[in-house]
Amino acid sequence: MTAFKDTIRAKNPRPVDTAGVSDVPAVRRDGVVHAVNLREGIIDIPGGLRLHHGARLEAARLGWRMTGPAAAPIVVVLGGISGHRTVFTLDPARIGWWSEVVGPDLALPTDQLQILAFDYLGGSGETTGPSNGEWFPAVSTYDQAELLWRLLDHLGIKKLHAIVGASYGGMVAMAFAQRYRERVSRLLVVSAADRAHPMATAWRSLQRRIVRLGLDSSRPEAGLELARALAMTTYRSPNEFAARFSGEPHEIDGRFVFPVEEYLLARGEDYAKRYQPDGFLILSESIDLHRIDASQVNVPVTAIAVREDQLVPIADMRALCARLPQAELLEMSSIYGHDAFLKECRQLKNLFAAPLGLVSGAEGTP
Amino acid sequence: MTAFKDTIRAKNPRPVDTAGVSDVPAVRRDGVVHAVNLREGIIDIPGGLRLHHGARLEAARLGWRMTGPAAAPIVVVLGGISGHRTVFTLDPARIGWWSEVVGPDLALPTDQLQILAFDYLGGSGETTGPSNGEWFPAVSTYDQAELLWRLLDHLGIKKLHAIVGASYGGMVAMAFAQRYRERVSRLLVVSAADRAHPMATAWRSLQRRIVRLGLDSSRPEAGLELARALAMTTYRSPNEFAARFSGEPHEIDGRFVFPVEEYLLARGEDYAKRYQPDGFLILSESIDLHRIDASQVNVPVTAIAVREDQLVPIADMRALCARLPQAELLEMSSIYGHDAFLKECRQLKNLFAAPLGLVSGAEGTP
Repeated sequence: MTAFKDTIRAKNPRPVDTAGVSDVPAVRRDGVVHAVNLREGIIDIPGGLRLHHGARLEAARLGWRMTGPAAAPIVVVLGGISGHRTVFTLDPARIGWWSEVVGPDLALPTDQLQILAFDYLGGSGETTGPSNGEWFPAVSTYDQAELLWRLLDHLGIKKLHAIVGASYGGMVAMAFAQRYRERVSRLLVVSAADRAHPMATAWRSLQRRIVRLGLDSSRPEAGLELARALAMTTYRSPNEFAARFSGEPHEIDGRFVFPVEEYLLARGEDYAKRYQPDGFLILSESIDLHRIDASQVNVPVTAIAVREDQLVPIADMRALCARLPQAELLEMSSIYGHDAFLKECRQLKNLFAAPLGLVSGAEGTP
Repeated sequence: MTAFKDTIRAKNPRPVDTAGVSDVPAVRRDGVVHAVNLREGIIDIPGGLRLHHGARLEAARLGWRMTGPAAAPIVVVLGGISGHRTVFTLDPARIGWWSEVVGPDLALPTDQLQILAFDYLGGSGETTGPSNGEWFPAVSTYDQAELLWRLLDHLGIKKLHAIVGASYGGMVAMAFAQRYRERVSRLLVVSAADRAHPMATAWRSLQRRIVRLGLDSSRPEAGLELARALAMTTYRSPNEFAARFSGEPHEIDGRFVFPVEEYLLARGEDYAKRYQPDGFLILSESIDLHRIDASQVNVPVTAIAVREDQLVPIADMRALCARLPQAELLEMSSIYGHDAFLKECRQLKNLFAAPLGLVSGAEGTP
């Protein structure tokens, strides 16, 4: 994990590769040799970026990563605000954020598809973002969409086979399709609507306030830990917590600590080691600022909704699909709520296959 | 409101009235003269208190308040952790925490019932609690029940007509009935179960961590504000927030502030002016420590459950009633979720009347 943590936290200026392409050797996994055909790089955005909410970045750079057979259809994969360009890897440490879903023979099969991803603007990755507490402008999902559009031009990609976006990534996917419909054939949107629900905005606003309390008190990690712990309560479902955390509390210095509290704090501490408060603030705000015009998303959309999702209620997904010109809604159930996209890999495999036109029955054969 | 704020915040040692009884004149309201017949006082608990979780308070005092016609049935009224002995008042400022429910011709008619209430142990009122950041032991709902039992002895009350408890107060009511079933004829329990749901414990644990972050950073009010703001998201329902807070954010210094965020912060600020972080920590922990044996609550219980309650899920109320030996479950719907007990005064009036044996049809007549 160390290499990944360093990458995520690194924000030092470095020489920019304008087309940094590196091939890695084939990797053996499950007795099968897979060629990842990795290409990745950091590009300068010529002329900087004029952002949707009015600010201007004079210079901007973009970190991207692509894998897969050169002739295969290209699918852009976008995750939540903690997602990044390293969607999957084949090494045993599995540091990709979606390694259970993207890979050989998985829901997004890397032997059938080229997978393209990038670090979000304003986040903790290699793309331009805040650092060292400096002010950074508000970022819209339209800005992420513009970055992707610029990346496609840079890579010479005329039209994507699909964008698969979950959570924030689903919002970005819809923003892209509204603006650049000629550049993508289809969207798969998991747990993301045309705007955030006010209760979700409530929870995220408070997370940002907690992070700021930490920053203002010179305890940035403590604030980010608590904010992430709170976020975890919204990512999961009450039923999951009831099943896992009904045990008794234990006493420490005369105060009681509850099993669910220990779990949340551990998740928060882990997160605060890997991400920066600044990037969290920008991308969290970006979710709440997200507003697209669903009626203008004129590409086929497969929307996947989770009935137990507290953050993106099923009613909002149904309303989204009623406004989208070409939508099919697939509803699923998961005790993991909003995090179903990270956990329900088998269900996703079934749901992704048809809209992506994937060949099934090829499991395990080279 | 000022008088009430001062009362709640006052924690200075003062001479203790062992049976401070004060009569107030009759009050005119809605053209009708009502005699409140107020008695209140602060009593010493002889011998202190041995607490359920093992600590011992060498000295303890208890603030109580009682109103109503001397011969009327006595009902103890207990609210959430922000509740206190001033359940209602007749003055226009209405500083009682349940003034919409308790009063002449209301759901708990003060002309038909004597209403008894007390400040919780460990809270911000006149009963013993923490102050000035000093350590205070963990408090159980059984400890609150013991205080009430001592209060009944002090006042010479052999048996209560009922205890009406909502939220934390419902937990205390059940703890009392399990321990002292001979002292109460019936319980009305609104939105309270035999133990807290792990998701609710998750949210409260994080509220306590936020308060401690504020205390540790010498920003106690900031921490309490955020904790209360977070609590508000759990007291209400997503549907209420969707109906109220779908407006656009506004920009302040390049950052966006959302309508729901402003609302929550305003509620938090208001709360932090009136309550102490220390008392919040103790009573919040007490909710999560609450565990009673429902099978031993051998009095008739009318349980009132709100389907939209995020904090006390309806499934937990149904399971509680399955374990209680003598329970009737009344389910209601409210966009206010857990806060329905503060908002749905008409529904409560209908639901309270039969179990309390109240005379109906006397509306508005003196």
